[in-house]
Amino acid sequence: MLYLVHMVVDIPDTVPADVAQETIAREKAYSQELQRGGEWAEIWRVVGEYANYSVFDVENHDRLHEILSGLPLYRWMTIKVTPLAKHGSSIR
Amino acid sequence: MLYLVHMVVDIPDTVPADVAQETIAREKAYSQELQRGGEWAEIWRVVGEYANYSVFDVENHDRLHEILSGLPLYRWMTIKVTPLAKHGSSIR
Amino acid sequence: MLYLVHMVVDIPDTVPADVAQETIAREKAYSQELQRGGEWAEIWRVVGEYANYSVFDVENHDRLHEILSGLPLYRWMTIKVTPLAKHGSSIR
Amino acid sequence: MLYLVHMVVDIPDTVPADVAQETIAREKAYSQELQRGGEWAEIWRVVGEYANYSVFDVENHDRLHEILSGLPLYRWMTIKVTPLAKHGSSIR
Amino acid sequence: MLYLVHMVVDIPDTVPADVAQETIAREKAYSQELQRGGEWAEIWRVVGEYANYSVFDVENHDRLHEILSGLPLYRWMTIKVTPLAKHGSSIR
Amino acid sequence: MLYLVHMVVDIPDTVPADVAQETIAREKAYSQELQRGGEWAEIWRVVGEYANYSVFDVENHDRLHEILSGLPLYRWMTIKVTPLAKHGSSIR
Amino acid sequence: MLYLVHMVVDIPDTVPADVAQETIAREKAYSQELQRGGEWAEIWRVVGEYANYSVFDVENHDRLHEILSGLPLYRWMTIKVTPLAKHGSSIR
Amino acid sequence: MLYLVHMVVDIPDTVPADVAQETIAREKAYSQELQRGGEWAEIWRVVGEYANYSVFDVENHDRLHEILSGLPLYRWMTIKVTPLAKHGSSIR
Amino acid sequence: MLYLVHMVVDIPDTVPADVAQETIAREKAYSQELQRGGEWAEIWRVVGEYANYSVFDVENHDRLHEILSGLPLYRWMTIKVTPLAKHGSSIR
Amino acid sequence: MLYLVHMVVDIPDTVPADVAQETIAREKAYSQELQRGGEWAEIWRVVGEYANYSVFDVENHDRLHEILSGLPLYRWMTIKVTPLAKHGSSIR
Repeated sequence: MLYLVHMVVDIPDTVPADVAQETIAREKAYSQELQRGGEWAEIWRVVGEYANYSVFDVENHDRLHEILSGLPLYRWMTIKVTPLAKHGSSIR
Repeated sequence: MLYLVHMVVDIPDTVPADVAQETIAREKAYSQELQRGGEWAEIWRVVGEYANYSVFDVENHDRLHEILSGLPLYRWMTIKVTPLAKHGSSIR
Repeated sequence: MLYLVHMVVDIPDTVPADVAQETIAREKAYSQELQRGGEWAEIWRVVGEYANYSVFDVENHDRLHEILSGLPLYRWMTIKVTPLAKHGSSIR
Repeated sequence: MLYLVHMVVDIPDTVPADVAQETIAREKAYSQELQRGGEWAEIWRVVGEYANYSVFDVENHDRLHEILSGLPLYRWMTIKVTPLAKHGSSIR
Repeated sequence: MLYLVHMVVDIPDTVPADVAQETIAREKAYSQELQRGGEWAEIWRVVGEYANYSVFDVENHDRLHEILSGLPLYRWMTIKVTPLAKHGSSIR
Repeated sequence: MLYLVHMVVDIPDTVPADVAQETIAREKAYSQELQRGGEWAEIWRVVGEYANYSVFDVENHDRLHEILSGLPLYRWMTIKVTPLAKHGSSIR
Repeated sequence: MLYLVHMVVDIPDTVPADVAQETIAREKAYSQELQRGGEWAEIWRVVGEYANYSVFDVENHDRLHEILSGLPLYRWMTIKVTPLAKHGSSIR
Repeated sequence: MLYLVHMVVDIPDTVPADVAQETIAREKAYSQELQRGGEWAEIWRVVGEYANYSVFDVENHDRLHEILSGLPLYRWMTIKVTPLAKHGSSIR
Repeated sequence: MLYLVHMVVDIPDTVPADVAQETIAREKAYSQELQRGGEWAEIWRVVGEYANYSVFDVENHDRLHEILSGLPLYRWMTIKVTPLAKHGSSIR
Repeated sequence: MLYLVHMVVDIPDTVPADVAQETIAREKAYSQELQRGGEWAEIWRVVGEYANYSVFDVENHDRLHEILSGLPLYRWMTIKVTPLAKHGSSIR
């Protein structure tokens, strides 16, 4: 099933720079592994913002929450999930 | 270039049913032609809403506005456009 | 899978009273059939509002959209869907 | 009487990790005791958010406030309470 | 139990003047009967607005919804209900 | 003259616990003295929130601001004041 | 006592032009009489909007509501009232 | 002086098509005359919306309001004006 | 030219009390000097809030920004500026 | 292609004054270099706010994100990007 996910990152100013950098590096690896596995189907940068829109293709709600709550940057993110259904005009 | 587009449709109650149906039919044909041409890359239904999220892959802003303002349902739509850039974690 | 659904009904003043009443009657029958079938798990009235919070237990997003878009009052509703996952503190 | 309660948790970054963990553990025990007692009727995780929707079945407003203000995470929560009435279409 | 209720009235311009006036007259009688009965404990006009803040003292949620949904102006109102608990600083 | 006042309290996490407790105690005494004097006519807890709705009956705007800006918790409060007029349906 | 009042006018498209013009003319006369009497102390146009900010200097809340609810355009206005107190830095 | 002006157009469905078209034609002529005169310095279409952002360079507030309130589509527009000052980093 | 200015002050809890007090004292002197000079035409306290509405009468946008950005409390303020034009009903 | 960009700066109170000043100086140099290169076409100060509206003329979304995410003040900014198309009434 498909979900559109909007993630906004806001790392507090009090987080040491090395902690932030290391967490961002882990985030990238975590994301790429899920992309290769096919569950994280798309990821786009919102121009001018520390935010992304992503599409996830996962088995169910619990799996999506497991993935999102496991994000290394999760505690500094504001996330909004929109379930997507097939559109009647889609040619796919 | 990629754009995420959110479209909400609200056909006024005063529009005759046949006008509404005919317009919806033209909308579907219009959308499918652009999907086949590759400019309307994705279209998903927002669950429970007369709304969709779409991804457009077009040459520039003017072309996107030409497409959107040409939608048969355009006058009854609320549209929001978000430009998308490549994400540093994307494996594509 | 579980979804929390918030529905707000706003029937335009221009709808004839008998059309409104007949639609409301069909809505009730439609809802009760889905409740008996188990997919519409809960329905509560929001005190003081022509609105409800409901819980749906359905197979996937497409089925939920099929149910909601088939509501007799659908065209006069504002609907918001929230996917629900299992909570780590739940004793169920 | 039934109430829908939306709780969002936001633990400040300045809280030591062990204090946060210990409070979260107490929160879980507190919640489960009230679930077993029947007053905390439902608890669901909002997918992708450190938030839940819960249903409480308590005697009156004062009892609900007593329960909520006693939550170990209360000082770091944003809570919104919606009173629920019986819906005319409910088959219960 | 106490509830703070905020009511905003917006009578559509298409309602005939005599229908509006007759409905407003019934609203007043309905309100005063409930005030005399003690369930509608307070009613104040919001300065400059066709709106009021009221306090209701009723047995439970279902009774409050019965009262509010029975308001002659109900279909043209936007209502928001806030449950009120005893305050620890109150001297009552 | 009557005013509805909505107060939300948010004590920063960096305030030492004893300072917070002492301030809360002074707040309670301050409130009760004004309640006894009749100017702070009502105070209710918003269920589930560190917030209250209060009714003040004071001589004028300046007196209300004097009272509110003198609240021991004032610096950590978000306050919204709504002037209340007599309602045409009131039986008082 | 002083109040800042924000008024937004939205005359529905269904109102006949002569009714709108006649009402606007009465509004102007009504406003100017209150300005001459000193209660409507200031009136400014918000640039680019069919809206104004005004300052009223009246005896109490009831008088202000009497004035505002008597505005010929009242039924087509959205009004917001802010009570103003003396500022500690004012040299008046 | 410079002002950024955001205009959103919403022509009601009840306006006859010829009236709408004629008004839109007058709007275009009106805008182009002011552009040639230099007061309407810039006009850009917001992609996907019946809206524009414009920059006006006029003598004062009264002149800007005169221009905007004279727009043929004015009664169907929502306008927001932002005064612009010289920026310290500007190289102009 | 006239501008309505809304200023909200929010001094962070981490600012030492003496720094805050000294800054507030400078703010008062700064404001009173501009009031005496006629540019800061009005200042009113919003009842119950650490906020004011002010009217400025200055030569142009750049002068207003110079004044506002020079406020001793500027870095802790949220400011909103509304340009005011002459109102057609004003008797001034 | 043209983009309207709204930038709001909010430097946390915990940032040392010299770090803030040095960053602001680098921001100015960075902005002026891009202005001279023609990509940063316009920059205006929003009166009374630590904010600006800017117009960028760049090749594509990726280039705009590269520019914006490279701003020395980027981590303390809230940025909103609006793509601009040619307006049918423009005389350019």
